[in-house]
Amino acid sequence: MLEELERTLHEDIPITTQLGITVLRYEADALALKAPLDANINHKGTAFAGSIYAVATLAGWGLIWLLLKEAEIAARIVIQESSIRYRLPITRDMVATCTKPSPARLEQFFVMLRRKGIARLELQTQIKEGGQTAVEFNGRYVASLHKEHVYQEP
Amino acid sequence: MLEELERTLHEDIPITTQLGITVLRYEADALALKAPLDANINHKGTAFAGSIYAVATLAGWGLIWLLLKEAEIAARIVIQESSIRYRLPITRDMVATCTKPSPARLEQFFVMLRRKGIARLELQTQIKEGGQTAVEFNGRYVASLHKEHVYQEP
Repeated sequence: MLEELERTLHEDIPITTQLGITVLRYEADALALKAPLDANINHKGTAFAGSIYAVATLAGWGLIWLLLKEAEIAARIVIQESSIRYRLPITRDMVATCTKPSPARLEQFFVMLRRKGIARLELQTQIKEGGQTAVEFNGRYVASLHKEHVYQEP
Repeated sequence: MLEELERTLHEDIPITTQLGITVLRYEADALALKAPLDANINHKGTAFAGSIYAVATLAGWGLIWLLLKEAEIAARIVIQESSIRYRLPITRDMVATCTKPSPARLEQFFVMLRRKGIARLELQTQIKEGGQTAVEFNGRYVASLHKEHVYQEP
């Protein structure tokens, strides 16, 4: 399923190939995407803020994509709003890890999606470097069963 | 000066070339950057959220770069935090317009930068399409005269 997610990202959003974004792992409680420093570097040798944002926002999008796949629900996923805080510069390949919501929150999300055809989910993504949190990202995503609900594709 | 800004973006952050980001215009009260839809498209034919963010964040960065150039101050500019709201999907080439702060706020910024060696500036950037605001971006940037103050390069 991770290969399918990575293929979906590269096919649906071609610039993710140039950004070098790959799916690193999907564990019990989180999805991790990776992006290489060299493709996303700035002249100070650290990662470009826009690339950091892209990998963070797609970690959340990818997590919902996997959760919907597991639940066998076909829905569109868009991002409605987000905030990001850059605490430390990133000097290596980056790994953006998006944490699963609690089972109760996830259940509520699926109930709402099935009942209303649309549901929101707030997700947190972090990028750590050397044991420290370098980047904190919060995104509000919307899944919808119908086309007319869509705000913004990822 | 706009050619120099564009060259700086492309040389300092190579991925901006792939994103197709160019400097469109610098008027009395705003800097506008442009990015083509085709390089940043997703499978729904709208612009990728990460590309939208990249051009918006660089519009603010570029505006401060120009303001510092005009004031003949050599400083590093980084982004500390930001938020973005996607109100409508973008279906054409995008133009991100960052509005200058008020003269009073700008004066305060320069005074602080000269006195403390570091100063923050909050900037708003919008992307409009067909007369409507499609994207609202708020960024908090930090300019610093000294290396040790740096948080995150753009």
